[in-house]
Amino acid sequence: MTITITAFERSPDGGRGLARDTRVRWALEEVGQPYQVRLVSFRAMKEPAHLALHPFGQIPTYEEGDLALFETGSIVFHIAERHAGLLPDDANARARAITWMFAALNTVEPVILELATAKVLEGDKPWNKERLPLVEDRVRDRLKQLSTRLGRTDWLDGGFSAGDLMMVSVLLRLKSSGILDEYPNLAAYVARGEARPAYERAFAAQLAINTGPPAG
Amino acid sequence: MTITITAFERSPDGGRGLARDTRVRWALEEVGQPYQVRLVSFRAMKEPAHLALHPFGQIPTYEEGDLALFETGSIVFHIAERHAGLLPDDANARARAITWMFAALNTVEPVILELATAKVLEGDKPWNKERLPLVEDRVRDRLKQLSTRLGRTDWLDGGFSAGDLMMVSVLLRLKSSGILDEYPNLAAYVARGEARPAYERAFAAQLAINTGPPAG
Repeated sequence: MTITITAFERSPDGGRGLARDTRVRWALEEVGQPYQVRLVSFRAMKEPAHLALHPFGQIPTYEEGDLALFETGSIVFHIAERHAGLLPDDANARARAITWMFAALNTVEPVILELATAKVLEGDKPWNKERLPLVEDRVRDRLKQLSTRLGRTDWLDGGFSAGDLMMVSVLLRLKSSGILDEYPNLAAYVARGEARPAYERAFAAQLAINTGPPAG
Repeated sequence: MTITITAFERSPDGGRGLARDTRVRWALEEVGQPYQVRLVSFRAMKEPAHLALHPFGQIPTYEEGDLALFETGSIVFHIAERHAGLLPDDANARARAITWMFAALNTVEPVILELATAKVLEGDKPWNKERLPLVEDRVRDRLKQLSTRLGRTDWLDGGFSAGDLMMVSVLLRLKSSGILDEYPNLAAYVARGEARPAYERAFAAQLAINTGPPAG
């Protein structure tokens, strides 16, 4: 069955791979599944047709026959469950890989989102300069713990898994801040993720949309 | 195999059910699985023995034979996958229920956590009074979308699922703010969750710890 995902017609990041369709593209590339992309404008994202697919008016969505999903965690898990390559066979190792998916999305990403919010939505507020270091320190608290756990290993728990795919994707949002470089093993971990051929293909595909001629 | 979870020796919320072990207790009660609880102090949470179980030094953790998990999303999913009662049998409906778990944790909870952070960690900051309405409005943006999707239905997608368990748990954090009451269908949705016998048992169990004599 054809898989169709949605992506920004023009991503706010200009193609740096930070829009969340990249996570889904990466997962599909890891398992070797072809997919189609439907581009949506910011206006279309808030219209009923898209809201029926995604109640929070965001991208990506995932359609496959009768099935329609949203949330990158759910989409990546759905792909990982159905195709080899993103979850270990051993039941306990599989449960731990899923744990890292949730850890990326519910423990690590929230502090990173808060930093993005502080910069983007509150960048012009009078408190921003004084408040930003507090927000950055909350990011550091999490990264320090993650860095300790990762140690000298390549991936979070054995071989590369959907947990790493999600954690690397979340950490990528920090690249421009410089904070990631304070934790060399995490910076190397993210670089290992970016060096995977499947990530490279996913990145190139989203970049082509964002640097090509306007859709129309 | 015996299931053992961890919980706060004394919860910061004094037993209002907002500590995250309540989510896991609720899931175990829904599927009728007995469990043991090991209480941990704030100091013990930051020590190596606990960090080996939970790299971010939080509760709850979940142990079952050789398996050790953290992250409530992962633990609740693990329970839901192995026991009937929290995920539909139909494959597409199951994938949508999992989607709502991720939506609760990665789309709805982050804005609610930010509000908690603003009140607890930044309550004494000079900017707090002016900033708080902005944070509250970001919560409202999400709740409005969720309220629209829920409409007049009892649960998010068909019968009660792990997706509802997680969404209700996340929304419960808003109860004291009054914001939830601005969306009557969401307030009723949360009340339906709280009225489930399994939730009542989970709530009572965590309350007993927090109102009983000190552990030790």
